[in-house]
Amino acid sequence: MSDPLRLGIAGLGTVGVGVVKIVRQKAAMLQSRTGREITISAISARTRDKDRGVSLTGYAWEDDPVTLATRDDVDVFVELMGGSDGPAKAATEAALAAGKDVVTANKAMLALHGQSLAEAAESAGAVLRFEAAVAGGIPVIKSLTEGLAGNEITRVMGVMNGTCNYILTRMQSAGLPYEEVFEEANQLGFLEADPELDVGGIDAGHKLALLASIAYGTQVAFSEVELEGIGQITIEDIRQAADMGYRIKLLGVAQLTGRGLEQRMSPCLVPDSSPLGQLEGGTNMVVIEGDQVGQIVLRGAGAGEGPTASAVLSDVIDIARGTRLSTFGQPATTLRPVTPARATAPAPYYLRMLLQDRPGALAKIATTLGEAGISIDRMRQYGHSSGTAPVLIVTHKTTRASLDEALVAMPATKALAEAPVALRIEEA
Amino acid sequence: MSDPLRLGIAGLGTVGVGVVKIVRQKAAMLQSRTGREITISAISARTRDKDRGVSLTGYAWEDDPVTLATRDDVDVFVELMGGSDGPAKAATEAALAAGKDVVTANKAMLALHGQSLAEAAESAGAVLRFEAAVAGGIPVIKSLTEGLAGNEITRVMGVMNGTCNYILTRMQSAGLPYEEVFEEANQLGFLEADPELDVGGIDAGHKLALLASIAYGTQVAFSEVELEGIGQITIEDIRQAADMGYRIKLLGVAQLTGRGLEQRMSPCLVPDSSPLGQLEGGTNMVVIEGDQVGQIVLRGAGAGEGPTASAVLSDVIDIARGTRLSTFGQPATTLRPVTPARATAPAPYYLRMLLQDRPGALAKIATTLGEAGISIDRMRQYGHSSGTAPVLIVTHKTTRASLDEALVAMPATKALAEAPVALRIEEA
Repeated sequence: MSDPLRLGIAGLGTVGVGVVKIVRQKAAMLQSRTGREITISAISARTRDKDRGVSLTGYAWEDDPVTLATRDDVDVFVELMGGSDGPAKAATEAALAAGKDVVTANKAMLALHGQSLAEAAESAGAVLRFEAAVAGGIPVIKSLTEGLAGNEITRVMGVMNGTCNYILTRMQSAGLPYEEVFEEANQLGFLEADPELDVGGIDAGHKLALLASIAYGTQVAFSEVELEGIGQITIEDIRQAADMGYRIKLLGVAQLTGRGLEQRMSPCLVPDSSPLGQLEGGTNMVVIEGDQVGQIVLRGAGAGEGPTASAVLSDVIDIARGTRLSTFGQPATTLRPVTPARATAPAPYYLRMLLQDRPGALAKIATTLGEAGISIDRMRQYGHSSGTAPVLIVTHKTTRASLDEALVAMPATKALAEAPVALRIEEA
Repeated sequence: MSDPLRLGIAGLGTVGVGVVKIVRQKAAMLQSRTGREITISAISARTRDKDRGVSLTGYAWEDDPVTLATRDDVDVFVELMGGSDGPAKAATEAALAAGKDVVTANKAMLALHGQSLAEAAESAGAVLRFEAAVAGGIPVIKSLTEGLAGNEITRVMGVMNGTCNYILTRMQSAGLPYEEVFEEANQLGFLEADPELDVGGIDAGHKLALLASIAYGTQVAFSEVELEGIGQITIEDIRQAADMGYRIKLLGVAQLTGRGLEQRMSPCLVPDSSPLGQLEGGTNMVVIEGDQVGQIVLRGAGAGEGPTASAVLSDVIDIARGTRLSTFGQPATTLRPVTPARATAPAPYYLRMLLQDRPGALAKIATTLGEAGISIDRMRQYGHSSGTAPVLIVTHKTTRASLDEALVAMPATKALAEAPVALRIEEA
């Protein structure tokens, strides 16, 4: 029998408590599956005296997570504090420098500092794992890093922010406007303290950048993710999309093309009969496409105590079993810097515009699109009201560059009463 | 740089050729992901002279897979011959006895001999892995063994025979009877040489038995899987199920209850809005439920050159990276023997009967059900024809034992013109 694997856990919020519970309550199961005992040596959190619904007796307490991370009786530092910098990063760096393995759920830290942390881990002979940072309980990091490692990945897509998917599907099912459902989600405690992290696509963008790194062997490059939030989506967009056989999702897409790496996190239309289109509520979904395997779809809870703790435990169990993998699937020093590419993969687009109700307005818009090389697949004009006319256009496949060219030229036509909304239609 | 990892591949059918292609064409990618070269030393197949669409020069040829498996220049024996016994088993045993690691796609061999082969692997210090044996390209063995290892698994379900799902969804979409679609599938080459392996549920039952072993830490027990094929499903069943909001799937379910391990592979009704209900055509889906993670759904191609080769490569890559896991997720000697339980988990059932058109016939059936403690949720009787009347009943939740009691008592009522069909309704 091997020695016990001793954890030091920093951060005792929902996820930290979930991890403590599993380690305490499922000790026999974990031991039978790993061949060794998994124990907790020490813990750390902002507040010491607080009933967390689980006994913490027998664990040493550290006020300072850096001290915790470097204790002699800690083999694995489990970082569940969150925050891209500050104590989380300091303690992670200290743990790695001391040769400790690190398991973290911290997507922001890895999205911003993944490359340097992975290099630090490797030069110390330690492993740094982060299954819980992306899509909660779904074993997506493992699937991509290991299960599909025989593939050249051709596209990774995902709905990875449950709050946004809740808002969008609730708008549709209840017929409510964005502002009202946003407030509802807020009341239910679904939103981050800074809601822009959710509805602005930042949180999901962090996750996409991590997936892209593994998929394409590139250095994490969150700053190159094209971010667009869901705040501009109206109930009318959702209804019109539904009417045409689509659903609107905050969708992350990463693709490596001849021009470089595309990383987009933006509201997209997807076919309502596709797995992504059928995804309701707060559930997450990741779609991985490989040259050998075709399309693999993974679906499950993206947040919450149990699902996230399950993912943390999978990394801990790997370490207990002696599995030692590079953070992003290959040595960090071999990851290539990203050449970012703006969306070059052509796609059809959905355009919503409000036309001035005057003769020739629609013709001017159609001409502007035509001059940018964009042809119209479907068009609908609605009944006039107060001097303006809503128009919806679905284009044939075009590039984002052509579309931008048309969008830039539109104001000069004076045909529009407000700025148009353009959403990509992603084949799913 | 580590030494190359040298493969010996036995079996050059679709999957074997797919594996050779990846190793040849993606050498640089595999090396960057594993840190070592993956090479092929020797190959073996039934027929030597045959154009397989890929160059085999540079590989030693062995007529006898046993000789191949034990060659000095083979580190990993890749068994892709198939067949539960015979050369596949002999060569696997020889490889393990010689301390070689083994990667196989052979579900039948593992379903029948998994326990003894896993023990042989462990006593030789070798690993025996089989990602490709279950659900083709879907990384389900990895997800269950590793990604969800922090969970007590509460239920595993799956549609794991693409041919059956093709037949059932094609019957529905084209409105064709079973016999006609079966013949169509046969023409398309979708069926095994012995079609009973597909439509009788045997192939999918093998896969279910492997998943159950990992999920519950029990010895593989294919002989205890309750098997029921799809041959009795009529187009009317499919239409009626659709009418009530269900789809019919050949569904495998494994559950550990207080009474023991239930393993069922049988046609079931699932809600049409569930991921399983929405699964069309030849695609596979596995649903894993854990006490922490909730429900995880994995979907992808269950067969074919690329997807299956992708799964084989994932095992090879694990070995190249130094990952060494027990075949069924814990040492084979610690796996518990199965106490089989007939379906004790209560469920609603769908019953199709043909009543004699005589007064009181329906009352007798209802009485028989009531006497077995089964209450009726929904009932439909259709227009009479030629002296008989079709009746459909959906029961409230009941046990299989109660249902069997009622079914056994029914002939004595003389109310039925033919034997009833009973299908479980599985919450999904």
